[in-house]
Amino acid sequence: MIAMEKITYRPVRDELAYTFGGRLPVAHLHSGDVLEVFTEDCFGGLVRGPADLPSQVCRMPYLNPVSGPFFVEDAEPGDTLAIHLASITPARDWGVSSTFPHFGALTSTSHTATLQPPLEERVWVYGIDRQAGTVRFQATETNHAINLPLDPMIGTIGVAPGGFQARSTIVPDTHGGNLDTPRLRAGTTLYLGVNVHGAMFALGDGHACQGEGEACGVGVEIATTTILTVEVIKGVSTVWPRLETDTSIMSIGCARPLEDAYRIAHHDMVGWASELTGLEILDAYQLISQVGRAPIGNVCDPNYTVLAAVDKALLPTPDPAYTGVHARLRQHTTGLR
Amino acid sequence: MIAMEKITYRPVRDELAYTFGGRLPVAHLHSGDVLEVFTEDCFGGLVRGPADLPSQVCRMPYLNPVSGPFFVEDAEPGDTLAIHLASITPARDWGVSSTFPHFGALTSTSHTATLQPPLEERVWVYGIDRQAGTVRFQATETNHAINLPLDPMIGTIGVAPGGFQARSTIVPDTHGGNLDTPRLRAGTTLYLGVNVHGAMFALGDGHACQGEGEACGVGVEIATTTILTVEVIKGVSTVWPRLETDTSIMSIGCARPLEDAYRIAHHDMVGWASELTGLEILDAYQLISQVGRAPIGNVCDPNYTVLAAVDKALLPTPDPAYTGVHARLRQHTTGLR
Amino acid sequence: MIAMEKITYRPVRDELAYTFGGRLPVAHLHSGDVLEVFTEDCFGGLVRGPADLPSQVCRMPYLNPVSGPFFVEDAEPGDTLAIHLASITPARDWGVSSTFPHFGALTSTSHTATLQPPLEERVWVYGIDRQAGTVRFQATETNHAINLPLDPMIGTIGVAPGGFQARSTIVPDTHGGNLDTPRLRAGTTLYLGVNVHGAMFALGDGHACQGEGEACGVGVEIATTTILTVEVIKGVSTVWPRLETDTSIMSIGCARPLEDAYRIAHHDMVGWASELTGLEILDAYQLISQVGRAPIGNVCDPNYTVLAAVDKALLPTPDPAYTGVHARLRQHTTGLR
Amino acid sequence: MIAMEKITYRPVRDELAYTFGGRLPVAHLHSGDVLEVFTEDCFGGLVRGPADLPSQVCRMPYLNPVSGPFFVEDAEPGDTLAIHLASITPARDWGVSSTFPHFGALTSTSHTATLQPPLEERVWVYGIDRQAGTVRFQATETNHAINLPLDPMIGTIGVAPGGFQARSTIVPDTHGGNLDTPRLRAGTTLYLGVNVHGAMFALGDGHACQGEGEACGVGVEIATTTILTVEVIKGVSTVWPRLETDTSIMSIGCARPLEDAYRIAHHDMVGWASELTGLEILDAYQLISQVGRAPIGNVCDPNYTVLAAVDKALLPTPDPAYTGVHARLRQHTTGLR
Repeated sequence: MIAMEKITYRPVRDELAYTFGGRLPVAHLHSGDVLEVFTEDCFGGLVRGPADLPSQVCRMPYLNPVSGPFFVEDAEPGDTLAIHLASITPARDWGVSSTFPHFGALTSTSHTATLQPPLEERVWVYGIDRQAGTVRFQATETNHAINLPLDPMIGTIGVAPGGFQARSTIVPDTHGGNLDTPRLRAGTTLYLGVNVHGAMFALGDGHACQGEGEACGVGVEIATTTILTVEVIKGVSTVWPRLETDTSIMSIGCARPLEDAYRIAHHDMVGWASELTGLEILDAYQLISQVGRAPIGNVCDPNYTVLAAVDKALLPTPDPAYTGVHARLRQHTTGLR
Repeated sequence: MIAMEKITYRPVRDELAYTFGGRLPVAHLHSGDVLEVFTEDCFGGLVRGPADLPSQVCRMPYLNPVSGPFFVEDAEPGDTLAIHLASITPARDWGVSSTFPHFGALTSTSHTATLQPPLEERVWVYGIDRQAGTVRFQATETNHAINLPLDPMIGTIGVAPGGFQARSTIVPDTHGGNLDTPRLRAGTTLYLGVNVHGAMFALGDGHACQGEGEACGVGVEIATTTILTVEVIKGVSTVWPRLETDTSIMSIGCARPLEDAYRIAHHDMVGWASELTGLEILDAYQLISQVGRAPIGNVCDPNYTVLAAVDKALLPTPDPAYTGVHARLRQHTTGLR
Repeated sequence: MIAMEKITYRPVRDELAYTFGGRLPVAHLHSGDVLEVFTEDCFGGLVRGPADLPSQVCRMPYLNPVSGPFFVEDAEPGDTLAIHLASITPARDWGVSSTFPHFGALTSTSHTATLQPPLEERVWVYGIDRQAGTVRFQATETNHAINLPLDPMIGTIGVAPGGFQARSTIVPDTHGGNLDTPRLRAGTTLYLGVNVHGAMFALGDGHACQGEGEACGVGVEIATTTILTVEVIKGVSTVWPRLETDTSIMSIGCARPLEDAYRIAHHDMVGWASELTGLEILDAYQLISQVGRAPIGNVCDPNYTVLAAVDKALLPTPDPAYTGVHARLRQHTTGLR
Repeated sequence: MIAMEKITYRPVRDELAYTFGGRLPVAHLHSGDVLEVFTEDCFGGLVRGPADLPSQVCRMPYLNPVSGPFFVEDAEPGDTLAIHLASITPARDWGVSSTFPHFGALTSTSHTATLQPPLEERVWVYGIDRQAGTVRFQATETNHAINLPLDPMIGTIGVAPGGFQARSTIVPDTHGGNLDTPRLRAGTTLYLGVNVHGAMFALGDGHACQGEGEACGVGVEIATTTILTVEVIKGVSTVWPRLETDTSIMSIGCARPLEDAYRIAHHDMVGWASELTGLEILDAYQLISQVGRAPIGNVCDPNYTVLAAVDKALLPTPDPAYTGVHARLRQHTTGLR
């Protein structure tokens, strides 16, 4: 049913985008097309060793570049764009993380402003072994080292926002953006409401792995080769970003304070669960209260993210979400993973 | 090594406590003693059906009763009390949940005060099948029903606070209290700093299951028979509550806004991981940033709770926490589960 | 109408209280009695010069002592206690302020926890000239000095909380406590809901002056001689603390995050204005939205405080608050100021 | 010294702007030019009576229009733009306010999301008497009416943001925008950091009066004729918006939660006061802690605003801010008020 073309896109440096919105498309896609896209890391690939302090080698606002935007044919305001991530492959055999002055959850920041000096800026380089599926942490001050499970994710993915806006790629909000949740891994379908003609989606900021909350403000940052496919769901609107896997559905809230991100995600999930199952709203609220999980995405970006996640098996006889697009796209990309 | 006596305690109604602190002990324990204790549900057992609206059948401040306090011999300010939960068994074949006027995450409250009327107050009765290990959700407005996994937890457990205080059992804080995290299940050891002579711990508020955040403000509330054992760790202080299982360690932060609960838990975990492994502090911060999980406890109580959780297997060569008391108590209670 | 006895109370060191609740009364008062009470400063008078660092000369929990509690005859739960502050006089010719490790609005704290070291702890000594009405700021690192207006206030005043609780005097909440608002100056009447037989009010923590928010966490701390009178308003309950002056009424909200303190105060004020004027609730909401002021009290204590203040002259034909007790007590204390 | 041209601008409907950034200039100004500009009200003038419910007569994103942007010659990134408001005159003899579904401080919102229905949407029409200097409140449900002092302010004023962004005019942030503080009245100079060539400032959203916090989310909304003048301060950067009047200086923080807005404003003020006086930083922190005022702007917009305000007379021997531009522009506009 879905036509399928394979598009490959690898941006040159000048093509990298630093906003959602306000940019011309780099390519056009149709529903069902498969896109293989190279994404640069959040530092634009400029941090490669302990001496490359991000605040020195990077220059604002040239942080967190995304590849795109991609124009999706037939996507109009009021529709939903489904993006299925088929695979996310580290493009290099290393990743980096760092502290960054006045950025992160366990430091004062530009907004949680204090008179204290910043924490020391420091870079950690991780070795990535795709075969073994490991990410190697090496301490900087001692000899400690340990292998962590490789679990690649896309940190930043979104569409152009509405209202004639252009938003920095650092920001997560209703249009997606810098969501920074480990749940955005391969096998997942992301649903985003379309705000402008063509949707204009873009992505970047891969992480080889990331803890919940991204405490120090930086994951294990990697360039990736990501394979995905898209489908436009006509006439169905989506307010906040949503995710679907084979076993669960998730709503994403982006806000400060963190409890508002929790509220947004769970408010959206209660409505979604009610819609899929036919449960009355307070019944859905009750059920979600007992079976919902609430994985935190980030607690460092301009908006924090919290997810509301529910196992499909714990919802009574739910309809397929978005008329089964996740299963369709998953099937569609079999063999591409 | 640990002497062992089995103490059984079942409070009569007048013995139930509504504060941590300000109470005389109901029994005395020594390190290594095993306690089998009956805990009443958060409504004092008064909500038994749809007509028993909590705001009508319960009277403030007689909510969230705990059993205790228990005086632990040799526990002094500056020590740590380890409480190992060996088993938590629902005491009845039903549990209840409800909405409650202006309480919960998806409603305005006494503190997030708005001019809107409260949500409808409603009661849900759940059937509990201990053999099958299920908790049966039955919708109130439609015929939907579904079995949820039985996963009993203790919602409220703590010691007397310091500074001559007596705190409502509704409140979670450094002394423990109404932590409301599903991680407080059987097989877990809880560490609490001792503030007063004898520690004076108490517990109650069992849940047959609870979602992360306890969105509607109420879990599947049950009376329990709980078996636990305690050990005093002399001369070791603990600032915020901590948990340990066979595979992970966790720090608990209690605060508003929710990001401060996250910060507290992760600040504590960074220090704890550094202490157990010998990692320098920023190295520990970096590692926790990539491997930490941050399960939310509650987003409804006077303080919200967030945990920082780390798999022991992802820490490089850690020492046993608190000199291995978890393994010791786990061994000690084999056969009691 | 009001009988009047003059009671003088000066606590010896061992009589100072560190909680609201959990204490026996130091004296009994009747409505209309005048109390002259000595209050010690928040450091217990132990910080007298630059070398007296609070974290060294003070010992937890012996901070922020209050004088009392005072038992008020005829005060029962459900009543309101009106406390009119007739005068607040600095008891010494100096006051002190300081930074304090990890306490204050422009530093990370025990709850807004970061990995940064604390700000330097430092003491400032202020000269107080009661005749001139000035408080002299002298910089520590340069020769700058300037006279500030003397504007004495009581930082901590409250009644025993309900629910069998005893709360640290560091905490502001529904029972009053460490409100830390400059509006609690002489000429003001404070309304507090009574939670226990006798109300059990206490006070301390005078400031010679204090900025809105108490940014560094410490005002110009002074011992005071305070003259006040009380009246029990029978059968009228008060949920959150309220203030009245000759020209305005104010509601006080205590919470985190700061917007919840704002919400509480303004929610209370909308209801209060509606009650006094007969305005329908949304009409009152509309009017308060255009004429309300929202002075911040503290942004450093365990709960922050925000006030909702309205000029009586901007309310259409309001009834006197609490049947005119403010005017009555103001008249009653003429000549005592 | 300053050359002076008088420019008059009155936008036609299609020229109204709904973002800061992403627009072409409507006129060019030089430092010292005087601009007389018509600003439409936040509803685009479409709400004129009780039947004109905003959610029905207005269409997103066509809310909160601004007039501009104006290109200022010689303004470059890294400079500061000073905008002196000489006069703000209501353009009509009426203003309107309203509740708006799920918007405001005393209601749940799209972000503080709850399951409760919105408050009733209702419109209030105010009569404005420029001669008498009054704004007449008329209750909708009863006959209450009262005259409030006319105190016109500009709610929304800002420059284009940096980083290639275009931000909705609903949002306040470092670039200014929807600050919604009553302090932005005539006689005030606003300082904004320049982010793009020409600064590209715009303004709108006048209020005949507004309470602190703008509790219901809507002031007494008016169209205005505003007279202002500008000056570029070369080579001096400004991070957050600042204000100056004849007697005081103020820093503005925009953030959620509200305490972060407080922190930003006071962090900026401590640095500014230190710079103007030569006080060492902790000395400045101490002084601001005792003399600072913290007027709240809004508690309803996407970012809340809090100001840190200090009387110049309470700073020891301060230099003029920005080399005295406020006095210069004030003098420059004498006779235009």
